[in-house]
Amino acid sequence: MSTQILKAKSGVITSEMEFVAKSERVTPEWLRNEIAMGRVVIPKNINHKFSPRAIGNGLSIKVNANIGTSEKHCNLTEELEKMKIAIRYGADSIMDLSTGGNLRVILQQIIKQSSVMVGTVPIYSIATRLLAKGMKISQLDPEELFDEIELQAQIGVDFMTLHCGVTRSSLSFLENDPRVCGIVSRGGALLKRWMTDNNKENPLYEQYDRVLKICKKYDVTISLGDGLRPGAGADATDRGQIAELLTLGELVDRARKYGVQVMVEGPGHMPLDQIEMNMRVMKRICHDAPFYVLGPLTTDSAPGYDHIVGAIGGTVAAINGADFLCYVTPAEHLCLPTLDDVREGVMASKIAAHSADVVRNVGAARERDYNMSRARRNLDWEQMYTYALDPEIARRRKSESESGNEDHCTMCGNLCAVKNDRNL
Amino acid sequence: MSTQILKAKSGVITSEMEFVAKSERVTPEWLRNEIAMGRVVIPKNINHKFSPRAIGNGLSIKVNANIGTSEKHCNLTEELEKMKIAIRYGADSIMDLSTGGNLRVILQQIIKQSSVMVGTVPIYSIATRLLAKGMKISQLDPEELFDEIELQAQIGVDFMTLHCGVTRSSLSFLENDPRVCGIVSRGGALLKRWMTDNNKENPLYEQYDRVLKICKKYDVTISLGDGLRPGAGADATDRGQIAELLTLGELVDRARKYGVQVMVEGPGHMPLDQIEMNMRVMKRICHDAPFYVLGPLTTDSAPGYDHIVGAIGGTVAAINGADFLCYVTPAEHLCLPTLDDVREGVMASKIAAHSADVVRNVGAARERDYNMSRARRNLDWEQMYTYALDPEIARRRKSESESGNEDHCTMCGNLCAVKNDRNL
Repeated sequence: MSTQILKAKSGVITSEMEFVAKSERVTPEWLRNEIAMGRVVIPKNINHKFSPRAIGNGLSIKVNANIGTSEKHCNLTEELEKMKIAIRYGADSIMDLSTGGNLRVILQQIIKQSSVMVGTVPIYSIATRLLAKGMKISQLDPEELFDEIELQAQIGVDFMTLHCGVTRSSLSFLENDPRVCGIVSRGGALLKRWMTDNNKENPLYEQYDRVLKICKKYDVTISLGDGLRPGAGADATDRGQIAELLTLGELVDRARKYGVQVMVEGPGHMPLDQIEMNMRVMKRICHDAPFYVLGPLTTDSAPGYDHIVGAIGGTVAAINGADFLCYVTPAEHLCLPTLDDVREGVMASKIAAHSADVVRNVGAARERDYNMSRARRNLDWEQMYTYALDPEIARRRKSESESGNEDHCTMCGNLCAVKNDRNL
Repeated sequence: MSTQILKAKSGVITSEMEFVAKSERVTPEWLRNEIAMGRVVIPKNINHKFSPRAIGNGLSIKVNANIGTSEKHCNLTEELEKMKIAIRYGADSIMDLSTGGNLRVILQQIIKQSSVMVGTVPIYSIATRLLAKGMKISQLDPEELFDEIELQAQIGVDFMTLHCGVTRSSLSFLENDPRVCGIVSRGGALLKRWMTDNNKENPLYEQYDRVLKICKKYDVTISLGDGLRPGAGADATDRGQIAELLTLGELVDRARKYGVQVMVEGPGHMPLDQIEMNMRVMKRICHDAPFYVLGPLTTDSAPGYDHIVGAIGGTVAAINGADFLCYVTPAEHLCLPTLDDVREGVMASKIAAHSADVVRNVGAARERDYNMSRARRNLDWEQMYTYALDPEIARRRKSESESGNEDHCTMCGNLCAVKNDRNL
């Protein structure tokens, strides 16, 4: 019963560290030190078997895909299909955010069938159960929440979003500095509702040691949720957001000291010129904890295209300190994503991650771009497909055009710049 | 026979300036001064009737959509349909890059039917004609090129891409500092071929005064093409690119002095961390000329998704000095775009332009985002559709979901954060 961070602190290089070091092209000893310092995490529950990946400083940017049923749209087969598509297009993790149907069975199936790490937001299960019984959020029993966290840990969840920083103190800053869009985090809104109606402190904050104890037992990585993240560009970087961040920083220290792996979640909706500053202040306040961002979305006005908006903000975030990008699909703000939305969302985030990795010069990112460029110069289409982030679509678009079998494409025909430059 | 810049220099506020000032929410006097200084252009040929738009310092970011036939895919009706879609989704200008079919008829139809400014690359017509006759680029007669520029000016083209900076001097820098991907500009490659095979200087550079004379006569805005723009991230900001930029800076001065409106084209493929620097060096060298960028593309490896890549680079470019974004469609590097590609390309660029305008605080960009956020808080779907950059897709996705008629969406159902936060 030990965790990656405890082993790293005691000088042990685990098989997980060995595996990750190889795939990230870093030395196991360097990686062990980063994990010991808490700057890198390897979210892997002791009860979940798969090839691990690490998140954090100096490593390639990772991408998460959210899947899951809802009250209004509930089909396990479809969600499992979404998971497969997400993984096929390069997702490094899957979050099961189901809120409809038999949540236990759904989570078990996802963990069983996933070849990548799996995350959850345990409070969703409790809230779903309450709603199904016709009860109110204020009737939530904190004991149930801790039981759910323990149960999900037993099942094998690798990381859990826990909104421990939604405290009475951080909420007071929101009250004194009102927002256009209020709270947009589901977990954050649920906890606020419970706290307000019961006039009590957040149990995840008050009994954080219980959370730590469970997570340590199964080596669950805590993902400290940003319940007060801005849901509108106009609300970005307000006092409520920063007040919560200060608390999250303290909770990071406590988790590390206790021997639990921890990362921190971040915004949200945010004009582009605030992204760099946000990434830097977060890294400073949270002592370089791995940073998991939801977007950021650089405009509020593009429903139907929020995967593009997320890719813009995600690239800038990842260059400035974010380590883990939660995908955004074209369905965001409108409905549950379809299979095609999942592919589009993962690809947009992969492009953001890769664009950032080219700048950060980690992994094989620059090599891939170089090889693609050389293939273009050589008009070598097979090589271009090989290095494309989505080889299938590149091959299909070219092959189905009138220049399917030509060295040039239908855009330029024989006026192709490469052909003229090379005098072919 | 005068141009917007000449009138502005002489203190005249034209009806075009009045019109633009109103739509941009600036004063006519301020705008007149910007045009006189050459920091803003109003591309509008004296022979083309439409409601003008301006490009440059302090104004909202504009978006261009390329359309046009090619040797391999030639259908005028389809290209006109692309034009309509591009304008409907918010393109501020259309470039006719046709290289197949009867180019004269195509251009005339596009100018006749376009409600926005129209641009061309005149050398394409000459090269297409040569190729159709089975002749080589080296056999191009410079006189034909000047005749073509004059003819297109007569027809009513508002701005023309002219690669005047591809000189023997700038090409020599490429030779001494070889690239992965060489020259990727069609015009640049054609001129290099001609110059190399004939051992002569670029006629558009050598006889720049003839270019200026024609453009002055019809008030055609020159768009100084970047024939040596990088076509690979690995080639970005190399000596060839910067050598050409120095020449473009000198040509900007000459155009302004002569009384011709001028803007400058820029990269290209470029890792994100080089974009800000490129925008700043360009603005400095070219004395704040309006900057028209093709991308920039932050990775080479995403064929099929280059509209997303272009939106990432375009946003960062526009925040740092770019004024005009050339769209990139999902078909880029693979084939001529379809109707749907055109929509996707325009939308991606509009999102980049709008995200930058939110930061730059020009026009009504922040107002739109604020109104959208307020509508979200009020769960007012009709208002959300009103403020969406693409109202149609937002309405369709929500309406066709299982929560079509509900205040919440299928993503969260009654676990909706807004509903819980507001206690609805």
